[in-house]
Amino acid sequence: MSVLVVGSVAFDTIATPSGRVEDILGGAATYFSLAASYFTEVRLVAVVGEDFTAEHEAVLKNHGVDTRGIERSKGKTFRWGGQYHDNLNEAKTDFTELNVFEKFQPQIPKEYADTQFLFLANIHPVLQADVRRKMDGVRLTGGDTMNFWIQGTPKELAETLKLVNVLLINDSEVRMLGHETNLMRAAQKVLALGPQALVVKHGEYGATIFFRQGAFGVGSHPFRAPALPIEEVKDPTGAGDSFAGGFMGYIASQGEINREVLKRALFYGGVMGSFAVEQFGTERLQDLTREEIDARFQIFRELTHLE
Amino acid sequence: MSVLVVGSVAFDTIATPSGRVEDILGGAATYFSLAASYFTEVRLVAVVGEDFTAEHEAVLKNHGVDTRGIERSKGKTFRWGGQYHDNLNEAKTDFTELNVFEKFQPQIPKEYADTQFLFLANIHPVLQADVRRKMDGVRLTGGDTMNFWIQGTPKELAETLKLVNVLLINDSEVRMLGHETNLMRAAQKVLALGPQALVVKHGEYGATIFFRQGAFGVGSHPFRAPALPIEEVKDPTGAGDSFAGGFMGYIASQGEINREVLKRALFYGGVMGSFAVEQFGTERLQDLTREEIDARFQIFRELTHLE
Repeated sequence: MSVLVVGSVAFDTIATPSGRVEDILGGAATYFSLAASYFTEVRLVAVVGEDFTAEHEAVLKNHGVDTRGIERSKGKTFRWGGQYHDNLNEAKTDFTELNVFEKFQPQIPKEYADTQFLFLANIHPVLQADVRRKMDGVRLTGGDTMNFWIQGTPKELAETLKLVNVLLINDSEVRMLGHETNLMRAAQKVLALGPQALVVKHGEYGATIFFRQGAFGVGSHPFRAPALPIEEVKDPTGAGDSFAGGFMGYIASQGEINREVLKRALFYGGVMGSFAVEQFGTERLQDLTREEIDARFQIFRELTHLE
Repeated sequence: MSVLVVGSVAFDTIATPSGRVEDILGGAATYFSLAASYFTEVRLVAVVGEDFTAEHEAVLKNHGVDTRGIERSKGKTFRWGGQYHDNLNEAKTDFTELNVFEKFQPQIPKEYADTQFLFLANIHPVLQADVRRKMDGVRLTGGDTMNFWIQGTPKELAETLKLVNVLLINDSEVRMLGHETNLMRAAQKVLALGPQALVVKHGEYGATIFFRQGAFGVGSHPFRAPALPIEEVKDPTGAGDSFAGGFMGYIASQGEINREVLKRALFYGGVMGSFAVEQFGTERLQDLTREEIDARFQIFRELTHLE
């Protein structure tokens, strides 16, 4: 089954302790698409400017990504600049130029109408809800958001959360959204807002999936997947979106949606996130093989499983 | 096999968002002993003052802890006061009265001479090394330390680390000791200082054990155990020492020392840490059953293991 992602395509300028790159292809939807492409067919809805060339598009097309949903607008593509210092979990933003992204109104090509798996990357919650409402056949919706929307558009976000089956956010976002410092209690509060499952990304400590009681099968125990202890994180940009791509891509590749599939998806999310940070931008995500991915899945298993 | 712990017995005054207690029995060696007592026989070397009563000793004796190594000195027992706020990983110390602990010179009763498993809780590294050198028959030495010794007595600590097989410290201590912000590289540097294995405690994110290449069997992959997502942490005091007690106690209870035993021990460490924080002080550690412990071990397994 194909997965559709709606989100940003961008050009990033990034400085980390390992180096600096300028105007490289990035954006949540780009990382997501490349990561998911190793598992299933990917459809992309985004907006770009006149500076987005055929070469940029080829990066996606080479991975079988359906780019018919990329809208070309007059002006420049979304640009972001940021730097990371010793704490690689925290980006310091140098500049954000929304450009064509400022007026992004996602249009869903009619060829995408049969989409069953949808991922709403981090955009305005009203746009996220609009997209979801247009897609009748969707079986599972994943979503992302950020502190900017949690604090700035809480009512709109609340509406969107009722339409999202699996929300993927990080620790501090869960605590902010749940108005609660204890992670377990915060997760319960977020689940009460709508999602049947909540994936909390812990950066270098992995991720935990919390289930609403009874959702996706019996029980309510959470499940935790590790992150790979990595000697050199070259560029953390896109790790979370690559995680989401691995997570949603794996789910879409399976016939069933159940708890065991979601648990494995959490592992594949971690695997794709761990690859993403090994090189700047999407470089590492461009040249992977499914064998490398499965070998790392096995390492993740050995990292956590007793005999 | 019995395990011997050398460390502090104290009276703690603790305030957390869940309440406040005064002068309750605590100290690293106390938490360690109670946690380890569910797995194996425990021997204790510590110093207490005249305010340490038969009732206090009974808490340990009721768990079969051999208290012949408790030295009684004139004066008062070590006292610590601290509080925790929203971030339960961080204690704010209100006062530290070393009292009789200031001149602690660990004496090993001759009945302890056949000890094979030793845990050097967080005391001056010179005392740790002295104890280890006195114990000829020890097969495995675990050790703890803290920022105070890492920064204040680096040379002495370096000597001690050559005598410790498994060092158990937290993330920030690993980074400080390895002079390195990347956890994986910091861990490698710490292993180069002597220990064959390094347990890094991540608080609510669990713990990772790193192995020196070839130590305890083939391979060099680390292994990660989770922590239990807990709705209410009443009192984090002693969580790390309880972790160490579960870890060392389980190892001592097994005939062999190999990688699989150490991995399971990491789980049992997490289990005992998760119980410790459910009540103030050592309360929860006093009334457990082995069935409860194994049931939680099973939950830890379900939390991390795919089908």
